[in-house]
Amino acid sequence: MAEKIWQKKASDNAFHAKIVEKFTVGNDVQFDYALAKYDVLGSLAHCEMLHSIHLLKTEEWLLIETELQKILEEIKQNLFEIEPGIEDVHSQVEHLLIQRIGEVGKKIHSGRSRNDQVLTDLKLYLKAEILEIKSLTETVFSSLIQLSNQHKEVLLPGYTHLQIAMPSSFGLWFGAYAESLVDDLELLLASYNIINKNPLGSGAGYGTSFPLNRTLTTELLGFETLNVNSVHAQMTRGKSEKVMAMAMAGLAGTLGKLSYDMCLYLNQNFGFISFPDSLTTGSSIMPHKKNPDVFEIMRARCNRIQALPNELILLTNNLPSGYHRDVQLSKEALFPAIQSLKECLDMLHFMLQHIEIKRDIVKGSKYNYMFSVENVNQQVLNGVPFRDAYKNIGLAIENKDFSPNYEIHHTHEGSIGNLGNELIEKAFEKVVSKFN
Amino acid sequence: MAEKIWQKKASDNAFHAKIVEKFTVGNDVQFDYALAKYDVLGSLAHCEMLHSIHLLKTEEWLLIETELQKILEEIKQNLFEIEPGIEDVHSQVEHLLIQRIGEVGKKIHSGRSRNDQVLTDLKLYLKAEILEIKSLTETVFSSLIQLSNQHKEVLLPGYTHLQIAMPSSFGLWFGAYAESLVDDLELLLASYNIINKNPLGSGAGYGTSFPLNRTLTTELLGFETLNVNSVHAQMTRGKSEKVMAMAMAGLAGTLGKLSYDMCLYLNQNFGFISFPDSLTTGSSIMPHKKNPDVFEIMRARCNRIQALPNELILLTNNLPSGYHRDVQLSKEALFPAIQSLKECLDMLHFMLQHIEIKRDIVKGSKYNYMFSVENVNQQVLNGVPFRDAYKNIGLAIENKDFSPNYEIHHTHEGSIGNLGNELIEKAFEKVVSKFN
Amino acid sequence: MAEKIWQKKASDNAFHAKIVEKFTVGNDVQFDYALAKYDVLGSLAHCEMLHSIHLLKTEEWLLIETELQKILEEIKQNLFEIEPGIEDVHSQVEHLLIQRIGEVGKKIHSGRSRNDQVLTDLKLYLKAEILEIKSLTETVFSSLIQLSNQHKEVLLPGYTHLQIAMPSSFGLWFGAYAESLVDDLELLLASYNIINKNPLGSGAGYGTSFPLNRTLTTELLGFETLNVNSVHAQMTRGKSEKVMAMAMAGLAGTLGKLSYDMCLYLNQNFGFISFPDSLTTGSSIMPHKKNPDVFEIMRARCNRIQALPNELILLTNNLPSGYHRDVQLSKEALFPAIQSLKECLDMLHFMLQHIEIKRDIVKGSKYNYMFSVENVNQQVLNGVPFRDAYKNIGLAIENKDFSPNYEIHHTHEGSIGNLGNELIEKAFEKVVSKFN
Amino acid sequence: MAEKIWQKKASDNAFHAKIVEKFTVGNDVQFDYALAKYDVLGSLAHCEMLHSIHLLKTEEWLLIETELQKILEEIKQNLFEIEPGIEDVHSQVEHLLIQRIGEVGKKIHSGRSRNDQVLTDLKLYLKAEILEIKSLTETVFSSLIQLSNQHKEVLLPGYTHLQIAMPSSFGLWFGAYAESLVDDLELLLASYNIINKNPLGSGAGYGTSFPLNRTLTTELLGFETLNVNSVHAQMTRGKSEKVMAMAMAGLAGTLGKLSYDMCLYLNQNFGFISFPDSLTTGSSIMPHKKNPDVFEIMRARCNRIQALPNELILLTNNLPSGYHRDVQLSKEALFPAIQSLKECLDMLHFMLQHIEIKRDIVKGSKYNYMFSVENVNQQVLNGVPFRDAYKNIGLAIENKDFSPNYEIHHTHEGSIGNLGNELIEKAFEKVVSKFN
Repeated sequence: MAEKIWQKKASDNAFHAKIVEKFTVGNDVQFDYALAKYDVLGSLAHCEMLHSIHLLKTEEWLLIETELQKILEEIKQNLFEIEPGIEDVHSQVEHLLIQRIGEVGKKIHSGRSRNDQVLTDLKLYLKAEILEIKSLTETVFSSLIQLSNQHKEVLLPGYTHLQIAMPSSFGLWFGAYAESLVDDLELLLASYNIINKNPLGSGAGYGTSFPLNRTLTTELLGFETLNVNSVHAQMTRGKSEKVMAMAMAGLAGTLGKLSYDMCLYLNQNFGFISFPDSLTTGSSIMPHKKNPDVFEIMRARCNRIQALPNELILLTNNLPSGYHRDVQLSKEALFPAIQSLKECLDMLHFMLQHIEIKRDIVKGSKYNYMFSVENVNQQVLNGVPFRDAYKNIGLAIENKDFSPNYEIHHTHEGSIGNLGNELIEKAFEKVVSKFN
Repeated sequence: MAEKIWQKKASDNAFHAKIVEKFTVGNDVQFDYALAKYDVLGSLAHCEMLHSIHLLKTEEWLLIETELQKILEEIKQNLFEIEPGIEDVHSQVEHLLIQRIGEVGKKIHSGRSRNDQVLTDLKLYLKAEILEIKSLTETVFSSLIQLSNQHKEVLLPGYTHLQIAMPSSFGLWFGAYAESLVDDLELLLASYNIINKNPLGSGAGYGTSFPLNRTLTTELLGFETLNVNSVHAQMTRGKSEKVMAMAMAGLAGTLGKLSYDMCLYLNQNFGFISFPDSLTTGSSIMPHKKNPDVFEIMRARCNRIQALPNELILLTNNLPSGYHRDVQLSKEALFPAIQSLKECLDMLHFMLQHIEIKRDIVKGSKYNYMFSVENVNQQVLNGVPFRDAYKNIGLAIENKDFSPNYEIHHTHEGSIGNLGNELIEKAFEKVVSKFN
Repeated sequence: MAEKIWQKKASDNAFHAKIVEKFTVGNDVQFDYALAKYDVLGSLAHCEMLHSIHLLKTEEWLLIETELQKILEEIKQNLFEIEPGIEDVHSQVEHLLIQRIGEVGKKIHSGRSRNDQVLTDLKLYLKAEILEIKSLTETVFSSLIQLSNQHKEVLLPGYTHLQIAMPSSFGLWFGAYAESLVDDLELLLASYNIINKNPLGSGAGYGTSFPLNRTLTTELLGFETLNVNSVHAQMTRGKSEKVMAMAMAGLAGTLGKLSYDMCLYLNQNFGFISFPDSLTTGSSIMPHKKNPDVFEIMRARCNRIQALPNELILLTNNLPSGYHRDVQLSKEALFPAIQSLKECLDMLHFMLQHIEIKRDIVKGSKYNYMFSVENVNQQVLNGVPFRDAYKNIGLAIENKDFSPNYEIHHTHEGSIGNLGNELIEKAFEKVVSKFN
Repeated sequence: MAEKIWQKKASDNAFHAKIVEKFTVGNDVQFDYALAKYDVLGSLAHCEMLHSIHLLKTEEWLLIETELQKILEEIKQNLFEIEPGIEDVHSQVEHLLIQRIGEVGKKIHSGRSRNDQVLTDLKLYLKAEILEIKSLTETVFSSLIQLSNQHKEVLLPGYTHLQIAMPSSFGLWFGAYAESLVDDLELLLASYNIINKNPLGSGAGYGTSFPLNRTLTTELLGFETLNVNSVHAQMTRGKSEKVMAMAMAGLAGTLGKLSYDMCLYLNQNFGFISFPDSLTTGSSIMPHKKNPDVFEIMRARCNRIQALPNELILLTNNLPSGYHRDVQLSKEALFPAIQSLKECLDMLHFMLQHIEIKRDIVKGSKYNYMFSVENVNQQVLNGVPFRDAYKNIGLAIENKDFSPNYEIHHTHEGSIGNLGNELIEKAFEKVVSKFN
């Protein structure tokens, strides 16, 4: 096992150390791979800054930079490995550097602590993931708008209290989920803005006596601004993850609800939509059976993601300020969830390509009465007070004197006849544009 | 009991209805008072719009408007009451109107459903509350910045792993919580943007055949834009509350952590701060005892608020699209929490006015070694590689050859000597300015 | 405002004290009424014990006992009131006592602290509520078993993946929820056992130098045993509430799922059950509409109850041992939820009295294929390997050569033809009997 | 890729199937290894039962049994592997069987569905894990009792509101956590009782036409009794995991609180305990620094475990009855948490072996006043009313006329002088004994 930084001399208690390490490090190393690239980028910026304040000579800086670029290349080519006994990605990068360029490699730690280093890696990583989630959301959004426009004429029963209530349409249904993503993106944007701040230079949470130029590293790393106060910078650990989890939970809420609709609409009692056999599971002795496994798993994944903000709150609430190692576990909670959400978005996009729409659904007799509202409204438009029109139609129905009129003339913004998808697209683009 | 809208003829099952009403309405009415003002404002805008599309004659509109303004005045003067047997605020307003101006009062329901009416009230109410929370946050922010500037010279031990680690300062500590509020406000802003959209005109979630002008009501009500799609507008119920709860949980996280610090620093083993006797509870036989009840309750309230997003997720996840009455309960979960958070902000501001700071804390001998990092860094600045400097000081300490130097020269952005409070203030104002 | 125990002399900071009290007491007093009865019972036992160890003279004890009995009577007759300015129920009882019998009334506080007093009240109260919940659960259980037996012949489609899958029956459906209550009661029993321990005598969490006889108060108060260790006794605050909340969440999970089934089965696309008009809300222009408001609100209440364990965990996790005032807020989270759960159980029982069952559901053509499994099994029973029988029927279906056989002969324990309700009843009674 | 059971003929949509499988199976297979052993045990019992009802001939049964025993042996020797393309452990076992003994292997599926098979495996597995958790809890309990007895004379300050309040002792502190485990075990026992019921024979949740003898498999598998009703049996999926998670959260709450105490007591401002250097991390330039990484990680793990019940509730709430694939994800949430909790218990036991206790803590002057309560009580025991005694000591303190008396004479059950550990041990053993 590699010597820990805090071990001045070899411990005679190697056995104890091993037990402690196994318990405390756990499976953290596997999540560190996601940070490798950003760790090197952070070190590159830090060294350029150290050079600018004369803490690295030009030749030292160039030597370090060249080697870090090589390591970066190795990471991109999946050649990078955290060796057994090295406890984290930061140690591994430093270890490689010292192995290859000797003593000078140790200098990259000047004016930096493990704490602000991890924080910087994490924020760079989360920023990149947020942008990927944003892109995948854009794809799903486009599919939904396209389906909404394509099927805008096809009516669908609208439910309230899960009871047949009013005419709706596939145009409205798909469009609704598209617009829901506008709001979700607004929350994602907030998390992006909160995370897009540079913690590098905050040390272990109390700054340092080195005359660092934090504004320079902020520019070099592409952060929009600084986490100014060093104690605050440290407090963003846990908080960044929590805010991102909230934004993810927002998206997951939308995807989960859509998945639920999919399962319900695919159910034979509803029977509003279908998917090719290859995308459902079934049974040759029950040919009508089309198990929506994809949407059940998507719903379940989204429910797990919606549990995440609470889990991260539990991890960090009631802890006083200052670093606590507890936050290490935010990685094992958050990182897999990020991948899971991206897979959900990707899968949803794929499924939407293959969704099949039933036509003439609303002509089933059980849907007749939902057109009665239209008749009431027609009378009102002709001058009858609402409550009276309502009574009239009620009596007509009681006397079996009612037949549905399938011609729906809704004209206001966001109605069957005027979906307003172009407004929704504009709103979406407006939020997207704020990401940069 | 007043006749329900859905009761065409008096039920012979009055007893059943009573039982059902008691169970379903529960204590919802008490939360409806918060919506009364907004319900009238919504009706005023709706009627002006109905007039503009010729569904209300000018004299009808003026009659209704005059009476609604009177009701609004009564609400402001706390004269408004929801009568026993009237199930909600919307029914009560309509009831009063019909009582006072007769049949024409019924017309305000044209082109509107209970669902979009409640949604509109709710969003107007939440917007107002968000702005109040924002204002209270500004007050706390100012106190924290002022305290940070005032006590910037006073050192404080900085902890990592709850172990004495590095010199910190009251300047850093107060400033950190100020900057934390910048991030919290960013999340609050996102919730504001998401909520600041007009659902009026979406009916029961499927629009209506009335030729409504939703753009007009959007302007009249001061919403920034529309919830365009009617199905989506309906889906914002539950979602609006959830997003607001997330933003509240963000603030509560900050306040909860600060409360924890307060309790810890007030503890006699730490002893960093104090408060006047009148603001703590104590014991005459244990004169040193200053129970921080205010901060314990604040922490507890903030923990309850942090539980809120999860509660609202549980209320709404796994429900298909379309209105479900389940969402009614979001009010009893959210509304008291809003008041509680505002009281916490207010109380924190009050307590910060009276906080007393201990000086010379770090001269206690247990804090000596935290100055050793300074010595290491000094050697590094003089050219010694970090790891070597570290070993040198380690040996000096081992040989009892170390004495702390209390002169801290930190110069970088966000450090003890350069708090960067003006940057934090600028960042705060930038977010504040985006609220309008 | 009444003098606080910790106020030796009147504060010149009355204003401060008022603010602090308003914030810290909040609306706690309203929940204290639930504890009043148990507070007096606790004091009665404590005084009898004080007398037994000669800390109260016989005449003092009798004087106190007589007066406490009177107060108990007043509580039972709803004549008891916590006066403005008295901060809690314990102070009010003590206040009344001193007012009525003078100095000797002060002696009831000997050897007792507010902390163990509240804990004792709380545990007695929770015990009583658990027993009420148990009783209400028994009523619901009986209804379900009765309905299961009554409708055991009526088939129902069974779903997997929300797809029509296999024949089920109302017998199975009702019986399933009955058996689910067996498990829920097991959890409730655990909470009862955990709560049914006497904390009285643990003082503020560190015991006392008075030679208390805690075994005596345990017997007098009807606790099964002691919370022995005083520090542990104090730690049961928060934990008792949490464990009870878990048991309540278990029941709420069952009721919530049943409510969901009710909403789905009442939906016109399913149409398996109905309720009288007086128990649903509807619309005269949509005569088929039967909004299941009761079950939507029940589901929503149950979801809030399921959020409760997490809320209580958040309130108490990461707090070190020893009393913190944070736990005060457990009351405002838990107490209303207890009432809500009891109302749900009561309402469910009521609704079950009125449920109407549709017959011949499975003869709808969409359910035909679910009988194919029966045919496969029949072949297997005749010796054909499962996979082959499966293929045979699959081919028959493909060749339109399949017609359903509605005669279901299931014989094993827990199947359509052999519900095993008597076994379930026995299991239920076994758990019930363990409550005492 | 192996043919799926639901694939009658090879799909020409292999690509689609692959995408769907990747998304839906996810990383489920890795958790299936934990079930392998129990899957074979379940099959052994099922086949013996099939033989008893003449659905397997004796020679078939013996053939199958011999081969299953071999597979069981391979599992025990870690030779068992789920092959790429095989979607779960059940398919793999069946696959091996058919590969080795041909067609007859297919017969083990008669009268069984994937659903009751998974459920059976899961319950057998959870039972075994519960018993392991119970055993580990016993070890920790013994350590705590032993430490409590060993250090019963050593005083410790007792805190309320995190303020120094009353004398406590290491005897009380260790004993409190021991007794806390008694309650936690009660909850674990409830989960054991709930899980210890046989779902085998419930098929896909609606039973089967095979004349199964479920009572026989119940005996063979060592379940205490049946999940009688088939629909209920299916509903225990999700519920079993949730109840176990609640019990785990109970234990995690205790361990988390103890971990917090450890971190606080190890903090230099408290300084009540210590651990050898080899079990903490430190810094050679801050020799007093002993970072309690083990307890920070333990606390964090316990907080994640406390988030688990909520996560499982979110996964399953608002789903109607009947199987949904969503429940598959309960494994990836629960299984790692089980291992984590066991590691925490093991690690805690290890750490307790090495804890070092500071003596003479309470003689620090800051602790003087906590002895004042003793003086008050002494006066009361001599006949002075409590409130008066309290005033007397208060005045003495005010007049600097107070000196602490370190002799503590607490005699009641659960106090410093009478820890009652033997009662606690008895209570613990009583719960332990109920596990079998």
